[in-house]
Amino acid sequence: MALLNEHYFKLKAGYLFPEIARRVKAFCDSDPAAAQRLIRCGIGDVTEPLPPAVIAALHRAVDEMGQRGTFRGYGPEQGYDFLRAAIAENDFRKKGLDVADDEIFVSDGSKCDCGNILDVLGSRNRIAISDPVYPVYVDTNVMAGHTGEPDASGAYPGLTYLACTEANGFVPEPPRDPVDVIYLCSPNNPTGAVATRAQLEAWVKYALQHRAIILYDAAYESYIVDPAIPHSIYEIPGARECAIEFRSFSKNGGFTGVRCAFTVVPKSLIAETSTGERKPLHPLWNRRMSTKFNGVSYIVQRAAEAVYSAEGQAQVRSLIEHYLGNARILVAGARQAGLSVFGGVNAPYIWVQVPAGLTSWQAFDKILNEAHVVITPGSGFGSKGEGFIRISSFNSRANAEEVARRLQVLRWS
Amino acid sequence: MALLNEHYFKLKAGYLFPEIARRVKAFCDSDPAAAQRLIRCGIGDVTEPLPPAVIAALHRAVDEMGQRGTFRGYGPEQGYDFLRAAIAENDFRKKGLDVADDEIFVSDGSKCDCGNILDVLGSRNRIAISDPVYPVYVDTNVMAGHTGEPDASGAYPGLTYLACTEANGFVPEPPRDPVDVIYLCSPNNPTGAVATRAQLEAWVKYALQHRAIILYDAAYESYIVDPAIPHSIYEIPGARECAIEFRSFSKNGGFTGVRCAFTVVPKSLIAETSTGERKPLHPLWNRRMSTKFNGVSYIVQRAAEAVYSAEGQAQVRSLIEHYLGNARILVAGARQAGLSVFGGVNAPYIWVQVPAGLTSWQAFDKILNEAHVVITPGSGFGSKGEGFIRISSFNSRANAEEVARRLQVLRWS
Repeated sequence: MALLNEHYFKLKAGYLFPEIARRVKAFCDSDPAAAQRLIRCGIGDVTEPLPPAVIAALHRAVDEMGQRGTFRGYGPEQGYDFLRAAIAENDFRKKGLDVADDEIFVSDGSKCDCGNILDVLGSRNRIAISDPVYPVYVDTNVMAGHTGEPDASGAYPGLTYLACTEANGFVPEPPRDPVDVIYLCSPNNPTGAVATRAQLEAWVKYALQHRAIILYDAAYESYIVDPAIPHSIYEIPGARECAIEFRSFSKNGGFTGVRCAFTVVPKSLIAETSTGERKPLHPLWNRRMSTKFNGVSYIVQRAAEAVYSAEGQAQVRSLIEHYLGNARILVAGARQAGLSVFGGVNAPYIWVQVPAGLTSWQAFDKILNEAHVVITPGSGFGSKGEGFIRISSFNSRANAEEVARRLQVLRWS
Repeated sequence: MALLNEHYFKLKAGYLFPEIARRVKAFCDSDPAAAQRLIRCGIGDVTEPLPPAVIAALHRAVDEMGQRGTFRGYGPEQGYDFLRAAIAENDFRKKGLDVADDEIFVSDGSKCDCGNILDVLGSRNRIAISDPVYPVYVDTNVMAGHTGEPDASGAYPGLTYLACTEANGFVPEPPRDPVDVIYLCSPNNPTGAVATRAQLEAWVKYALQHRAIILYDAAYESYIVDPAIPHSIYEIPGARECAIEFRSFSKNGGFTGVRCAFTVVPKSLIAETSTGERKPLHPLWNRRMSTKFNGVSYIVQRAAEAVYSAEGQAQVRSLIEHYLGNARILVAGARQAGLSVFGGVNAPYIWVQVPAGLTSWQAFDKILNEAHVVITPGSGFGSKGEGFIRISSFNSRANAEEVARRLQVLRWS
């Protein structure tokens, strides 16, 4: 008889966004007039069209695929050389960071990579995650059997939770107890916090000392405006020995519907066998991608390449400035409404403390029912997110301004 | 200290196609004049451009992505409704097969799906694979820790190998001992064999009797010309209770570089927990895709939809007839050269017995050096592939005719 993977039954039934969708649908069904006014600042999905340089590259690549002489079949599973080189050169080497072309693995999404990376890691690592956290880090570890059943608070035994609070600027410190694999995300989803150089140095020092691996999610890197904040973990000496970095074209080029991302696996990154042999992880990831993946669509890789053209860079910059402009408006609006606000400066997410006495979901319902705005309840990202909400700045300017106005109307007491 | 997945070290170092690439490169370097004449019939990659209906759909979708009003961000992880409906309707319901839209999961490749399906299965299943076999089935099980170290012949303890020989028409019979998960591929890669209705009925009967799951790889389904051969496992009564089917747009629409495929997981398919509870697999696969995947590029999904348009269907048909025409030429050429030939009728692959005394790799070297043609040595697909070579019909008509001519020149004794 065929057995299934029972670890899946440990997953909490209601993933955050389906529950939001359910409540929004109930609201819209009950009040169709108000539904017309609804503004969505929930899910972190871009709203603006692809940059013209990307559109032009897509059309060119499509034309190539229609002609026998320029048609492309299977590409390299790791990504075409033209894109790996463009990424390594523009995102790293031009900034003085030592990353080789063949340390870049092009994929169809950071979500996939963050989950799939567990394929090449052993089953007995001690895993540390932030709280609050992007749920995919937790759920993929649950699916892989790295945890027990969740407790009453929703926490999984087997994971080390690192509290992110106002006291530590929502960036966790290394734990006292040793861990082997650490997920860090900066600029952070959901809190909008950014890790300082000193904080990243502390993490790299910890990882080298404990021979741990940092899984560094930098999907929102291009939102960093503060020149003191590192854009890449590889700005920290020693990181090439202990860190894997995830990047994406979703939130800079607006590729959430196009699908392209990449992972940097330095050849100097070492992990261990159970008998203590030290081996590079790069060949394992290369084998994983060769065996279980067939590369990203050629058309999409040409689109990603266009992000690095001079026009592409300028157009991407103005997209990001658009969203960061929204973030400024939303931060100011929430502050003016008397709320405590974090993030939203080097990140597209605004992390807002809910006035005392309300839970995240109560605040969600209040904002939905009274302001007709969809946000994300912080408790959906972990127990330390309770009492917060996340507002996304991915929207039109008019909607961001309107949300800022509507926040003023809410009466919290 | 971070531990790596040691099962990767059980994988055989030389994956088939890298070794072929190495030998071809050595040949080309040593004889640049002959290299000019080289014809590749090795890897199963399409050579003809995308159908015009697909190109038009791609351009339209690209234009949509460039306008705010029609831009699409994140899509459903399982695929857009328009594509799931087109697939279920055209590939199944129009043919009288009961498959619902939400049993279709759109992905970026059958290779990915065949590997990823192990995520939702338990770790103690007894796995049966054909010999010879598409190497991905084996390697993904090795990576998942379902095997021991390979023996001298390259076989992995923990896998049940089902011999495919001339005696059984290269389609394996159900084994005497019970197994839990069975990989079947028809039309077959590499042998070009097709499973008859009676053979599939025997497998479905076996699976239902042993509560096993059949992983049915039908990536080459559209090459079936014999009206008696089933195109889908779901043509067999009972298959909805025991079979998952993998399909692809790679070999019909020519999407090897575009990337789109799908998997059918019937809601009536049941697997078991270790305590004997019987549960549907559909919710697990749905959760897996929601958590570890972000859906296929919107642009690509519109391209796949166009495959089902009237023009798309006609254009795809003529692509397949082109490759099947090549197959007929290659089959005739190989027969005329005195070789024993299998497959190549309902499949794009021709499976040729090497004259006695030669190994597959010796035949590979001889054909490369004397005919300047690249084929694939059968032994690369498993021990029962020894003594055979695979010739792919994915090529231009002129090349297929030239390869058929060059086969006549070879002297085998």
